[in-house]
Parts: sequence; structure tokens; C-alpha cells
Amino acid sequence: MTIETAIERLRKTLGPAIDTSDANRRLHGQNESYFPEILPNGVASPASTAEVAEIVRICADEACPIVPWGTGTSLEGNALAVRGGLTLDLSRMNKVLEVVPDDMIAVVQPGVTREALNTELRATGLFFPVDPGANASLGGMAATRASGTTAVRYGTMRENVLALEAVLADGRIVRTGSRAPKSAAGYDLTKLLVGSEGTLGILTELTLRLRGQPEAISAARAPFPTVGAAVDAVIQIIQMGIAVARIELVDRVAIDAFNRHFKTDMPLRPHLFLEFQGSPAGVAEQAETVREISAEHGAAAFDWATDAEERRALWKMRHNGFYAMKALFPGWGAVTTDVCVPISRLAEALATAEQDILASGLVGPIVGHVGDGNYHAALMVEPGNETQLATAKAVAARMAEKAIALGGTVTGEHGIGMGKMAYMAAEHGPGWQVMAELKRALDPGNILNPGKVVDLN
Amino acid sequence: MTIETAIERLRKTLGPAIDTSDANRRLHGQNESYFPEILPNGVASPASTAEVAEIVRICADEACPIVPWGTGTSLEGNALAVRGGLTLDLSRMNKVLEVVPDDMIAVVQPGVTREALNTELRATGLFFPVDPGANASLGGMAATRASGTTAVRYGTMRENVLALEAVLADGRIVRTGSRAPKSAAGYDLTKLLVGSEGTLGILTELTLRLRGQPEAISAARAPFPTVGAAVDAVIQIIQMGIAVARIELVDRVAIDAFNRHFKTDMPLRPHLFLEFQGSPAGVAEQAETVREISAEHGAAAFDWATDAEERRALWKMRHNGFYAMKALFPGWGAVTTDVCVPISRLAEALATAEQDILASGLVGPIVGHVGDGNYHAALMVEPGNETQLATAKAVAARMAEKAIALGGTVTGEHGIGMGKMAYMAAEHGPGWQVMAELKRALDPGNILNPGKVVDLN
Repeated sequence: MTIETAIERLRKTLGPAIDTSDANRRLHGQNESYFPEILPNGVASPASTAEVAEIVRICADEACPIVPWGTGTSLEGNALAVRGGLTLDLSRMNKVLEVVPDDMIAVVQPGVTREALNTELRATGLFFPVDPGANASLGGMAATRASGTTAVRYGTMRENVLALEAVLADGRIVRTGSRAPKSAAGYDLTKLLVGSEGTLGILTELTLRLRGQPEAISAARAPFPTVGAAVDAVIQIIQMGIAVARIELVDRVAIDAFNRHFKTDMPLRPHLFLEFQGSPAGVAEQAETVREISAEHGAAAFDWATDAEERRALWKMRHNGFYAMKALFPGWGAVTTDVCVPISRLAEALATAEQDILASGLVGPIVGHVGDGNYHAALMVEPGNETQLATAKAVAARMAEKAIALGGTVTGEHGIGMGKMAYMAAEHGPGWQVMAELKRALDPGNILNPGKVVDLN
Repeated sequence: MTIETAIERLRKTLGPAIDTSDANRRLHGQNESYFPEILPNGVASPASTAEVAEIVRICADEACPIVPWGTGTSLEGNALAVRGGLTLDLSRMNKVLEVVPDDMIAVVQPGVTREALNTELRATGLFFPVDPGANASLGGMAATRASGTTAVRYGTMRENVLALEAVLADGRIVRTGSRAPKSAAGYDLTKLLVGSEGTLGILTELTLRLRGQPEAISAARAPFPTVGAAVDAVIQIIQMGIAVARIELVDRVAIDAFNRHFKTDMPLRPHLFLEFQGSPAGVAEQAETVREISAEHGAAAFDWATDAEERRALWKMRHNGFYAMKALFPGWGAVTTDVCVPISRLAEALATAEQDILASGLVGPIVGHVGDGNYHAALMVEPGNETQLATAKAVAARMAEKAIALGGTVTGEHGIGMGKMAYMAAEHGPGWQVMAELKRALDPGNILNPGKVVDLN
């Protein structure tokens, strides 16, 4: 019962789909955050659900940890093999298996990325709306319950995964949910697996909800005098039930970084970046109402991105904000935060965070999916600067504690991974122990992404 | 370790909150469907979460079953004490604890009914959208993952319960979720409890998502030449992303029953009953598009319910359809079906069902939340007529099997209760066993609503 025996047995069964080369192990030991490199003992690249089940059975037999891997774009070390073992790279399972336009669903393998799916859907008039920025795999997005800029309108992966196929810790293949839009038939295993970060099962097939491509889209950006004024406008917009497709806060520090990296000249003020989708008349009505609300809250302008190209440029800037920061500080890492609070407490939470970052001396722009109460600071850290790392972690910790105190969560969309384990007891209370009981029931040997989400001690 | 000892101990601790009178036991042994009377040994009426926890601890000690009870309006015998024990009537826990307009949430005790909540919300400009017809308790609605006419626009209880407090089988009180609109912090215990029918925990507090009362509402009914034509119109409406607030199919048999009971003179054809909600311009645009689509699919008319009173009359008719049928057949019971299929298969499923009911000789009107692929037949059964009951059950069984074959579910919104247990293995495959494993982990003594949802043998 060792990892080495597991890998030997897997090699015999699966041949070249098991790779223990240093190059491949290092590729799967990286992360986009500040966590140090952690190498798995080997990398498996299965091509089918049957192969995944075979791998899991052997690993269960040998008590070898298995860590699922999509594109490696997670930000909390979610896919790092902290207890060694096998990284299960699902990128070869990248087929769109079926699109049913009448049901507005797509069935995909877990390695399909969201951009690949949307490319394939282009001719159908449908699209998959969840957009975390990175071109993540849909399996990874489901596993971390990802969301992003469009969640305010279309929901997160929680709302957009209709059914799953998964391989459990003993190699059983189960199907959860159905193609019916809703069901009251027992425990919602789909929603239990979404967000479980590979600790309860390995997602091998996803049935996703699609939406009709909107007839009309328009986007705008508006500078506000303060973050508080912008948030007050957002609260009013949400309360009026205006179904904005995106409503993003970009703070002054982030605007400065964007201006420098993207060569823009936006005023150095907190901004809202907005998008409206719908019928031409609906979009016009929404946009005008939002413009009025923004003006009432002191927005100095409301600059339209009139054509598709300008719109793409706006969202490219927002989506690549994190990479833009990293480009301004080449080689630096970032402690990223991901708190999400009730929208009524958002202004208070943001003001506290901004002051704390300012006082810390760190560079830490804030961007946020403010329609959901979710925002991120990217606290830039120079490699090897332990004092700076400690300062960044302390600022991040205070943001997390504040979010819990305000009735929120320490992670709106990045998941727990390695970075948020320390807050689970405070956030969930006795509920965290219940999660451990569920994990023990479904993975008694603790082989699926051990060390993540729950504490089994 | 007996039920009797449990009740003696409870009486000492809780006094008059424990009642073993025949009258009260019979009140809690009834159901709105065809199931025979099943009496619990006693009825507990706790006034607080602490009392619920105390009751659960004693019952756990004595291996006494506990069956939570809201208003008794469930249709599958979900709240019947099939293994005896204690019915836990939560109707005394009926306080709206908090309404936070800025966050658009309400915190309620489980015994609050949806109408009571909406009455309390009237002055806030907000409302709770889930509407199963019956004035059910919100705890019961969450426990059965209820939905109803508005789910096509606003989602089911799954989408509208943000956080819970629950008492587990060992008396532990846990809180799940938070007030943040979204979270990626671990297993979604809220969604696991929603739809668990009291088998994993007793819901003692619910945090619910509210919506802004729409500025404008309009409703209409349209007769179609065939059910298939109506369904084709629905598919096109949904695909165009038109956010209709309600879109209900009422078949010819149901129209006939409505005409007789409500003294209306609707044409004897399948109808769609529709509602639009939003801004005045948005509602007008939606309604005109839907009218055009309906006309293209052969709708002979599009009759507006212009004012609030006509609208209320329309939905009262739809909501009381089940009671109307029972009034036309006084004293009869009904085998109700609740299948939900992918919308692309809806026309086929409905045609098969209609033919089967016709061939059976039963009276069985069909109404449906067709935007969700969900529909109900009420197969009327004379008391004591065992042949008729067997026929009705056979028709219902064929509908359920057909739904599974078409990729759907045997219950869109009523839950499993006693009526749908027989289909769980076929619908879920190995997933049903996984549900049993979760139940064993959280309720090893099987005291919470035993005999429902899962099979522990």
C-alpha cells in the first residue's frame, strides 16, 4: 500500500497515460498564486470515464491520493497535491458530447474549457454564461463552484450545472440529476459535488444549462466619486430588479494599473463597468435607468462601449486585471482575496479593506463582482520577501474575518484549496464537522484530494 | 428504548407541547392524496429551536421516529409517520424574524406560510416568489424542494433558500450557508437539506431570497388546437429567453372541470395561462412577442386579464384546480403525478399520458408548469374502489417510467414521500445508494422521517 506501488500498477494498466517525468510533474506542481511548488509523484491523463474509474480503484487499493486537474488556473492551490500521489489531468477528456438546442443544454467532458464550448456553440444561437475570466475547464469550474462577472445575471456553476457523472472514491460511476429542469427526487447530489473540489468524487461528465445569445448587448463604464457612492448605486440597481448582465467595481488603484498596462486614460476614480443584454428595447430601457441611478449617485460620466470591439476591450481589461498586475510586477506573486458579503455591508467591508491595504504599504488593487457582494484584492508580493508575504497574509486574514463578522463568506468563487482552510471552522461552526462526516462516508480512505475542504482529524 | 418511553420523557420535559389525544393524532395522520390514515403516537409542538433540539435528543436516545410537519399540504404522504413515533408540528414556530430590504432577504421560522410572509412583506416593495398554490409552510416547502407556477422565472426552493438553521439527528444545531449571495466555501449543506424531506435534519430557520415587486404585471390565456402546438410555442418562448413569470398548460379535461366548477365558459381546448412581470415597457414587449408566437402556433385568441381582479381570478382557478376536481367528485381521492421531463420531450410525454388516461377510463385532468417540463395528472379515485385505485396507480407508474426513459424525473416538485419510493432505484441508479450512505452518516439511528427518500436495507 504505497504511492510507488500504485504508480507501478497504473503504468502496467494504462501505459503512457501515466507520466512521472520531472517536466510533467513540475507542470502540475505550479499555481497562479503565491503557494510554493508542490510536485505530485506522477500525472495520469485518462481518456475516458472507464479509465478514471480504473485509476481510482487502483489508487483506493494502494491508498494513493488523487488530485483532479483541469487547466491549473485556480487561485487557492486547489489542485496541488499537498499529500503527494497522483495528479489526474483531465485535459484529454475534452469532447463536447452533445448539444440539445430545444432543451438548451450541453453535455461535456470535464476537460472542455468554457471558451472551447462557446466556440462550438456559436452557430446554435446559444451560449454558456458563466465567465470567471480565465479560460478554465468546465470540470474545474464546477469543482470550485466558479462564477465571475456574469453571475449577477446568470448565476454561478451551482445554478448552471444540471447533472453530473462522477467517479466516487471506490471507483463507482454515478450519475446525478437529470435533464429535467428541476426535480424533487431526493438529495441533490449534483449540488453536493459542485464545489466539493474533487474531495467527494471526480467529475467525468457535466450537463450544463445554456442561454440564448442576447439580441442586443451594450456596455458602459462610469467613474464615481467614492467606492461607497458606487456601491449605493449598485444596491439600488439590484433592488429595482434590473437584470444587468455584469456590474463590476474597479477601484482607483486598479484603474491606475489598468491605465498603465493597457495604455488607457480613465479618470483615477473608482469605476463601475457595466453590461446590459436583452432585446434592443430592453437593453435601452435598462441602460437609461442605470445611467440615471448612477448620475444620482455622483457618476461624472457614463461612457458607452458602443461596438463589439470596444466592449471586448473593456472586458478584456477587466478579465486580465490580475495578469496586468502581474505584468506590472514581473515575477511577483499575489495573495488574492475572495470575500463575499451581504450587499448591504459591502460599502463598509470595502472601506475597511481599502484603509487596511493603504496602511499596510502593499500594492493591492480591488476589483469586484459587486452585484453579488464579492470582491478581490490582489496583494502583490515580491518573491522571497517574507515580511511582505506575512503582511499580505495578515491583511487578507483581516478581510476574511471581517467578511465572516458581516455575515458573509471568505470565498465567493475561488474555493477553499490551501488558502482558506484556516477560516472554515469560524465560517461554518459545527457545519464544518458535518462536512467532514459526509467526506468520511463517501471517501473513508481519504484518497480524493486529501487535505482540502475538510479537516478529518 | 421505546416510543412510549420517549413520549413519557418528552411529556416531563415539555409538558403540554406534547399531545397524544386522538383528535390531534388524527389531524396529523391525514393527507391530501389517496394514502390511508396513518397515526403518529404523539404530536409535539415546539416553540423554539432549543425545544426542537431537546426533543430530538430524547427521541435519539429512545430510537423514536420524528416526522416534521408544516401545514400538511404535501401530496406524497411526505409527512406521514409510517413507522409511528412523533409528529413534530412546527406551526408554532411562525415568526418572521428579520427582513433586510437592502439584501433582499427574509429570515423566518419554518412554520411561517408563504402567504403570511408575503402579507408581512407588502409594505417593503419585496415579495417571496415561490408559489406552489397551496398556502404551505416555508419549512415544508424547503423540505420538499417545492416550486410551482413561478419557478420558470424565479426558480424553486433550491434557488431561493440562501441559508438554514437545522437540528441534526443527534440534536446538534447547525447553520448552513450565509447571507452572502454566493459562496465557494465547501459542501453546499443548504442545498443538501433542501429537498431532504426531514430525513437529514429538521429545518428550524430559513434565510430566503426576496424579489422586488414588479412595476407592471399582465396575464393572459390562450387556447391552442392541440397540446403539442401549445408546447411548441412554449419551447420557442423559453428559447428566446423571454422571462415569462408563469406559463401554465391546462388541458381540455381540466378546462372542462374549471368551467364547471368556476362557472367559466372557456373554449374546450388546451390552454396556456400566462403572466408577465417587469417594467411597463418590458411587460408590453414580452406579451406582444408571446402573443405573436402563440398565434404562429395556432392560438385562436389571446385573452387578457387586464386588471388585478381578473388576474387573481385566473390564478385562483389554476391554483385551486386540484381542489376544484375534488369538489366535482366529493369524497374522492386523487393519485397525483408529478413528472418533469426535458422540454424537448414534453409533447411526446404529454401525448402518451393523455392517451393512456383516455384508454384507462379514468377522469384525469392534466395541468403543468410547462416552462419547466413539469406536469401533473390528478387521477380521480372513488373511495373503496380498489380496481380504480389499481388502474390509477398503473397509469401513474407508466407516466413515471416514461419520464425516466425520456431523461426526466418522477417528481418535479412534490417530493418522494411514500408515493415515489418505488422509482428511486430506476431514476438514480447507484446514486440512490449514495443517498443512503449520506443518510447513514448523518442519521445512523434512522430516526428522522424513517422510511422516506432512501432505502437503508
